[in-house]
Amino acid sequence: MLYFENDYDRGCHPRVLKKLCDTNLIPAAGYGDDEFSERARGYIRTACAAPEADVFFISGGTQTNALAIGGLLRPWEGVCAAASGHINVHEAGAVEFTGHKVLPLPQRQGKLCPAELRAFLESFYADPNHEHMVFPGMVYITHPTEYGTLHGLQELEEISDICKSFNIPLYMDGARLAYALAAGTDVTLPDIARLCDAFTIGGTKCGALCGEALVFPHGAPEHFLTVIKQRGALMAKGRLIGAQFEALFEDGLYFQIGRSAVELALRIKAGLLARGVELFMDSPTNQQFPVFENGLLKRLSEKVTYSFWEARGAASSVIRLAASWATKPEDVEALFKVLDNLRGEV
Amino acid sequence: MLYFENDYDRGCHPRVLKKLCDTNLIPAAGYGDDEFSERARGYIRTACAAPEADVFFISGGTQTNALAIGGLLRPWEGVCAAASGHINVHEAGAVEFTGHKVLPLPQRQGKLCPAELRAFLESFYADPNHEHMVFPGMVYITHPTEYGTLHGLQELEEISDICKSFNIPLYMDGARLAYALAAGTDVTLPDIARLCDAFTIGGTKCGALCGEALVFPHGAPEHFLTVIKQRGALMAKGRLIGAQFEALFEDGLYFQIGRSAVELALRIKAGLLARGVELFMDSPTNQQFPVFENGLLKRLSEKVTYSFWEARGAASSVIRLAASWATKPEDVEALFKVLDNLRGEV
Amino acid sequence: MLYFENDYDRGCHPRVLKKLCDTNLIPAAGYGDDEFSERARGYIRTACAAPEADVFFISGGTQTNALAIGGLLRPWEGVCAAASGHINVHEAGAVEFTGHKVLPLPQRQGKLCPAELRAFLESFYADPNHEHMVFPGMVYITHPTEYGTLHGLQELEEISDICKSFNIPLYMDGARLAYALAAGTDVTLPDIARLCDAFTIGGTKCGALCGEALVFPHGAPEHFLTVIKQRGALMAKGRLIGAQFEALFEDGLYFQIGRSAVELALRIKAGLLARGVELFMDSPTNQQFPVFENGLLKRLSEKVTYSFWEARGAASSVIRLAASWATKPEDVEALFKVLDNLRGEV
Amino acid sequence: MLYFENDYDRGCHPRVLKKLCDTNLIPAAGYGDDEFSERARGYIRTACAAPEADVFFISGGTQTNALAIGGLLRPWEGVCAAASGHINVHEAGAVEFTGHKVLPLPQRQGKLCPAELRAFLESFYADPNHEHMVFPGMVYITHPTEYGTLHGLQELEEISDICKSFNIPLYMDGARLAYALAAGTDVTLPDIARLCDAFTIGGTKCGALCGEALVFPHGAPEHFLTVIKQRGALMAKGRLIGAQFEALFEDGLYFQIGRSAVELALRIKAGLLARGVELFMDSPTNQQFPVFENGLLKRLSEKVTYSFWEARGAASSVIRLAASWATKPEDVEALFKVLDNLRGEV
Repeated sequence: MLYFENDYDRGCHPRVLKKLCDTNLIPAAGYGDDEFSERARGYIRTACAAPEADVFFISGGTQTNALAIGGLLRPWEGVCAAASGHINVHEAGAVEFTGHKVLPLPQRQGKLCPAELRAFLESFYADPNHEHMVFPGMVYITHPTEYGTLHGLQELEEISDICKSFNIPLYMDGARLAYALAAGTDVTLPDIARLCDAFTIGGTKCGALCGEALVFPHGAPEHFLTVIKQRGALMAKGRLIGAQFEALFEDGLYFQIGRSAVELALRIKAGLLARGVELFMDSPTNQQFPVFENGLLKRLSEKVTYSFWEARGAASSVIRLAASWATKPEDVEALFKVLDNLRGEV
Repeated sequence: MLYFENDYDRGCHPRVLKKLCDTNLIPAAGYGDDEFSERARGYIRTACAAPEADVFFISGGTQTNALAIGGLLRPWEGVCAAASGHINVHEAGAVEFTGHKVLPLPQRQGKLCPAELRAFLESFYADPNHEHMVFPGMVYITHPTEYGTLHGLQELEEISDICKSFNIPLYMDGARLAYALAAGTDVTLPDIARLCDAFTIGGTKCGALCGEALVFPHGAPEHFLTVIKQRGALMAKGRLIGAQFEALFEDGLYFQIGRSAVELALRIKAGLLARGVELFMDSPTNQQFPVFENGLLKRLSEKVTYSFWEARGAASSVIRLAASWATKPEDVEALFKVLDNLRGEV
Repeated sequence: MLYFENDYDRGCHPRVLKKLCDTNLIPAAGYGDDEFSERARGYIRTACAAPEADVFFISGGTQTNALAIGGLLRPWEGVCAAASGHINVHEAGAVEFTGHKVLPLPQRQGKLCPAELRAFLESFYADPNHEHMVFPGMVYITHPTEYGTLHGLQELEEISDICKSFNIPLYMDGARLAYALAAGTDVTLPDIARLCDAFTIGGTKCGALCGEALVFPHGAPEHFLTVIKQRGALMAKGRLIGAQFEALFEDGLYFQIGRSAVELALRIKAGLLARGVELFMDSPTNQQFPVFENGLLKRLSEKVTYSFWEARGAASSVIRLAASWATKPEDVEALFKVLDNLRGEV
Repeated sequence: MLYFENDYDRGCHPRVLKKLCDTNLIPAAGYGDDEFSERARGYIRTACAAPEADVFFISGGTQTNALAIGGLLRPWEGVCAAASGHINVHEAGAVEFTGHKVLPLPQRQGKLCPAELRAFLESFYADPNHEHMVFPGMVYITHPTEYGTLHGLQELEEISDICKSFNIPLYMDGARLAYALAAGTDVTLPDIARLCDAFTIGGTKCGALCGEALVFPHGAPEHFLTVIKQRGALMAKGRLIGAQFEALFEDGLYFQIGRSAVELALRIKAGLLARGVELFMDSPTNQQFPVFENGLLKRLSEKVTYSFWEARGAASSVIRLAASWATKPEDVEALFKVLDNLRGEV
């Protein structure tokens, strides 16, 4: 079987695992006060060129989003997001559980359109009844988006400027940030730290066993540790995530994982296009979204794992093929062989 | 000045006030256990042909919506509503504050389209990832809608059937129900009680000083009184709302208030159409939504109160003109005179 | 029947009702922007010697407490209260529903002891694990307390000083404030406004049909109107409460209601003591808590309404007898006659 | 340095780590549908003699408590707990954040007293005002308690019977369950599964890197997976915890870890008693609570890590010494040598 279903179907990158093994018997303080977490924070501050950043390690992505959003919003506020945003669709109402509304805006290839965001914010304040409405108190973007697409630097600058002009924070969900950074875009980690008020550096889907780094480049909200505890997200053995991020950031492994997966994903993309396969979305990152006929998919599933994405008319479907640190060049070649054989059979 | 801004700019109908005066010195139990509330519940059960109904009197509409929705939804569920629904736009996130998501569907003249509702529910359960999503656990409709429009009996039956087939409750927000019932539609109170699992009979905007009757025709959720208390909605002097609803329902006043306001609103509508004024929406109820040029509106505002609804291009606006129990036929005549004079001046 | 069960068993004081009748047909803006509410706010500011105060009119007491507490606390904070405090016992978890813990402290005759409060706050910050605990973010007191007792000015000053030194707000629940102000204590409305960050002036139990004035003497939290809307507490006809508070405060009616009820309650107290009846608590306000033998109570209940308070051993009970604006001197005399007859029968 | 501060200062037991290494490259489904989690569930069902049990793996203890309590309580309900219970003191208000009150009862050596629990529940329903109060909807106990003490089987049976007679679930927080099971008590895992409606088998403090097994022996609440997702507790790589619990339960490692730590803790206890050291609490489990003079503690801290527990008068303190899988017999001997030297110096 070939494994392309997602980027979290294996354990962790061997160097991450090695770090856990090497540090296992070292006594350390609990709740994130350990030396591994402390060093990892330092590496992340350096990588972000954000020496004042506060960094927290949280076990999962939905948890982290709910914490950051619930921690930054005030009671009368909600969070603006593309309608396709993860928080609006696939987190089972985690933001609403914290008492806050997601204010959905149109998605444009999974992205927020700066002009539409500005228009929404302006129309909100122009509405004479806006005091009876949920105030837009934050902007949420994903990078890469749920469709694998990316905001360019200019778009990100524009969105950041809009947020500043309306005095609301910008939060970036970077569950797959490694792949965005490796995708040949002009957006770097220091750019993100400069333009966002909070963002995450995803571990779970980028080579760790678990964990996200939640970064507040200009400082965390007051008593955020207690909020983390209250929301059930403070790990007694904070070292578990700290040590993993130490491994990911002490010598560039995070970036290398991103590059390797993106390179293979782009090979997949090129191979698919060369074979005349339609792509649902022009993704420059580690997830590709080809469209296949359903009969072929059925046979494909005997040899390759993939994710069903959405129906495309009655007879075809969009699927997701993902590359990760665990994907090897020969897996991609093997995938093409399977595809060629299947299509030859028809 | 002529008053058409809304249906809640005066106190209450004189007969409602008389009831408060007549009963003021009668001692009564607190928290809704008084004789006035008990009688009012009986009148409402009769009017709804729902002898098993549980009826609670709540001070305001947003409160009532949050109670009914928060009281019926289970933790993993949200409520489907037209995107224009009051709970989705103008209640400052009251539903989300109870921890639940509003699942917005397209509005069609303010209404939910049964076919779109069914398609949404089917696609939810067809989605292989739906366990990571907010379950649609209730359907919310307004009657009349925020645009003054009405679901017909067939539409309501269809929506009710869809809810039954998906085993989720149907809740109707009847903040202005009196006007729906008087609008010559084929939907009666017993129909509503038969087709909905919960609904409100609005008092505040239909002639009372305050108060909504929240009706569960087939019985209330368990320990709902305690939930009302917990959400801050249990009035020590429950008699205040009970006595008002006794006045509204003991001899048909509620229906008479509806008829009188709708009749005058339709006179306004006819007079506007006769004068060639565009109507934003074809409303059969007590609110009319004409489009006027902004310059004229400015001068109109010196003689008539109205509500700004929304911009209509750069030079015009949709406004709302509302009739209520306090509107008199001569007010409508006077309105026309003002309009004719203003338009003559141009 | 004689009515002493509580202070909310009748409608409202006749002058409050007259105000509602007199103003009923005057058109007014909605949501508290009406002239009656505006004037009432002015009278309250004057009575409090707090010209900068923000005043909101809310329909009920539990609602108001949940709003004030939920509006002032930050996510990591809870509210300190006497274990017997209304929010800790009789509001069905309304504070917890807003996501915040009530931190119970010992009650001393229904009151918070300043020394115990200070010790609790000091021990919290001294605890090395306090970042894993709910921060004390506010102090809640009732005035009068649930037992009818009162904080003296010195106690109130001490509690206020403690709050200031720990930088947390002091909130006073004045559901029955009229009776506290009339009880010959040295605490005046301007004292309360000077020493508290928020407090309520109760209407429902002090002569109004409904409504509490929530006063922020030094200014309200940001966007508090939207929070009120979100919590379901913004009334479309805000005039209903505004006009009642205008009646209560335009010429001293609120204070007169308090004095009249307290005077009669003290006559009851004196009469009970003269008859050798034990008093559970030495209450200087409109509620008295005598202890009677259960057999006598059974017969008493045929002629007098009262509230059961709590069992006092196997054979006796504490009951509450309350006076209000509706209590007349001859009711008190009649109560004594009933008691004397019952006791003579034994 | 000797490490006795807590039972979570090292990584995980070597055999747990080995399992992570051995399984790292095996592809597996996400979100707990992997083979490791499935096998671990089977082992747990067997160990609990509960073949119908639903088992969920959650990353942390506070998270698990909030999920179980928030998932089982209905809106009008709160949870009864000893005032010293972890949820009432050291979880930063996590239960209240889900909207529910903790109803504190007296702690007796950290335990709930069955008779006091019954009396509380009876008095609740006997209170004529209980519909205005938080309903006791669940009982929470810790095993071992925060003081290291244990409920015996008879006590547990009594508490379970009381819960059944009031028709409310019993939930046991077993964050340190391994040590309870190894402590020579008569309470076994099958007893717990028979007597509780939900309980946790703690991993983090019993040899895992992270994770608790939340067990519903008679079946989980409806759609609990979605609730887990909504509360941010569903891990994409559920295998991380599943594989660890497989290692802990496939051949009795969990019990062995418990036995080893308890044996060493009892050696510590015996050695302390032999040296005349006062014990704050007679703990039969892996945590011991000796009382030392503060000067001695200062010097002790140069050679031994321990946790400060609470002040004991002005000059002494209670501390916690904990044993874990990582504690070796020679550590205990070394601890005694340090103590003897320090005391010899005086």
